[in-house]
Amino acid sequence: MKLKLICVGKIKEPSLQRLITDYSDRISYGAKLEMIEIKDSAPLEESKKITEIVEKIKDSKFVFVLSEDGKEFNSAEFSGKLKHLANDQKTIIFIIGGPFGISVDVKKKADFILSLSKMTFTHEMARLFLFEQLYRAISIIKNKNYHK
Amino acid sequence: MKLKLICVGKIKEPSLQRLITDYSDRISYGAKLEMIEIKDSAPLEESKKITEIVEKIKDSKFVFVLSEDGKEFNSAEFSGKLKHLANDQKTIIFIIGGPFGISVDVKKKADFILSLSKMTFTHEMARLFLFEQLYRAISIIKNKNYHK
Repeated sequence: MKLKLICVGKIKEPSLQRLITDYSDRISYGAKLEMIEIKDSAPLEESKKITEIVEKIKDSKFVFVLSEDGKEFNSAEFSGKLKHLANDQKTIIFIIGGPFGISVDVKKKADFILSLSKMTFTHEMARLFLFEQLYRAISIIKNKNYHK
Repeated sequence: MKLKLICVGKIKEPSLQRLITDYSDRISYGAKLEMIEIKDSAPLEESKKITEIVEKIKDSKFVFVLSEDGKEFNSAEFSGKLKHLANDQKTIIFIIGGPFGISVDVKKKADFILSLSKMTFTHEMARLFLFEQLYRAISIIKNKNYHK
């Protein structure tokens, strides 16, 4: 499975960064994970930069954009979707915006707008949630026991 | 606002515990927060203990039980619900189970079964999410600016 995560800004809270790094390490055992962190700037600038990065990826790809107004999956559905995409040799891209969210232009380019929860979380927290869910999804695919 | 959180087990991951403590400190500026951590044991034992604790709270109360099969709120709805309960002088209780979830008996005693997401998270992560949402809810009530 090939995963590319495009995120805006650095995580400022060291404990949160540590948790994300831990999940990222665990994901790397089961998938090829690349993390692309772009500088936080004006929302339009960020969106332009994200679009450029996505367009440069020449692999056959599937783009998830994280947004509150997206569709929710449960963990089994999410894992099933990822498995299916990996079987189709797709590079799976996740885009997480900054504090100002993501522009309509970037959303238009998404294959799927994904919501992690109806609740609003900080974009930093969303990054942690996504990493945890990616690790969980890979564990489900590999039939590993991962506790609740 | 009077909040009581009943949780099962200690958080083992120090970074996660640090984040939770940080939110807990921030919540304490805007609410009276009490955290009751019960030992993790057999699920039935845990549920019995939780029920005992809840029954001992003689205040007028409202009990949320966190469970995947509950109902989701968005952050504004959640904040509105808490504000309403605080205005009614209710002690607001949240119950988060352990790795084996929560028994039907405890759920039966709930006034509201709350789901934070359709996705499954570890119960440790759920604790962090809840604390973040409580802080966010209090910020919304107090009209404070809290970033996404």
